[in-house]
Amino acid sequence: MVIQEMSESECLELLGSAGFGRLACASENQPYVVPFYFACRGSYLYSFATLGQKIRWMRSNPLVCVETDVVYSSQEWVSVIVSGRYEELPEGPERSREREIAQEVLQRRSMWWQPAYVATAHRESADSLDPVFFRISIDRVSGHRATPGS
Amino acid sequence: MVIQEMSESECLELLGSAGFGRLACASENQPYVVPFYFACRGSYLYSFATLGQKIRWMRSNPLVCVETDVVYSSQEWVSVIVSGRYEELPEGPERSREREIAQEVLQRRSMWWQPAYVATAHRESADSLDPVFFRISIDRVSGHRATPGS
Repeated sequence: MVIQEMSESECLELLGSAGFGRLACASENQPYVVPFYFACRGSYLYSFATLGQKIRWMRSNPLVCVETDVVYSSQEWVSVIVSGRYEELPEGPERSREREIAQEVLQRRSMWWQPAYVATAHRESADSLDPVFFRISIDRVSGHRATPGS
Repeated sequence: MVIQEMSESECLELLGSAGFGRLACASENQPYVVPFYFACRGSYLYSFATLGQKIRWMRSNPLVCVETDVVYSSQEWVSVIVSGRYEELPEGPERSREREIAQEVLQRRSMWWQPAYVATAHRESADSLDPVFFRISIDRVSGHRATPGS
């Protein structure tokens, strides 16, 4: 197995095609990691969620980490790690263009809206079902690619 | 799609069969998440790594979060999230039994030793290649199972 570092453009290309990964946030040094769907556009990852622990924590501490990988076998895989910052895209004229991008890109993914809604509807919660749109500003990205071979 | 909460024993069963997930740690409220192999035994997840950012961060802040999932389709998936604490298993008589468990269980996984070693060997690093064995003490576990249906 040969492991090579990926260039920044290779990492962004993987993020663009993956669309699924894990988002880690932290509150008072307790990390929390959940699966999430996203769309990569430029140096941002766009996504959304209904109000819950993840959004509350990212509002209070915007530092996040995203990991995505494609594992073909134990000898052939790609893994990319992003350090970034949570930026909420609230309703209103200031961020309307970014919200449109988030919605346009996310709507291309079939079932894009289901996990967040159903998870929230399932909980007996007074939280709003309105989606919270956000993006992760990519500060640093690194990736490794493993291929079989000597 | 119907989403159901899983019982603690169902969560532990999934952790026992999965053996692969993502481990999130945090330093000064910056989260960091990486893929990792583990073995679940009782209320602990056993794993190892060579010395690097992950081990350094968990030594300074033992609070961690582990996520593992099995995704069959957008309507059929299982996801389990663990909140726990990092416990290093140093060499010496005190933790020798736990180290044995970690090594026994991990050795059953083919290629179990490759990712950590190769990742370290690839870096031009002065860090030791000796494995650091550790376990995650499971404080809380929760899980959700999605099945197709009304």
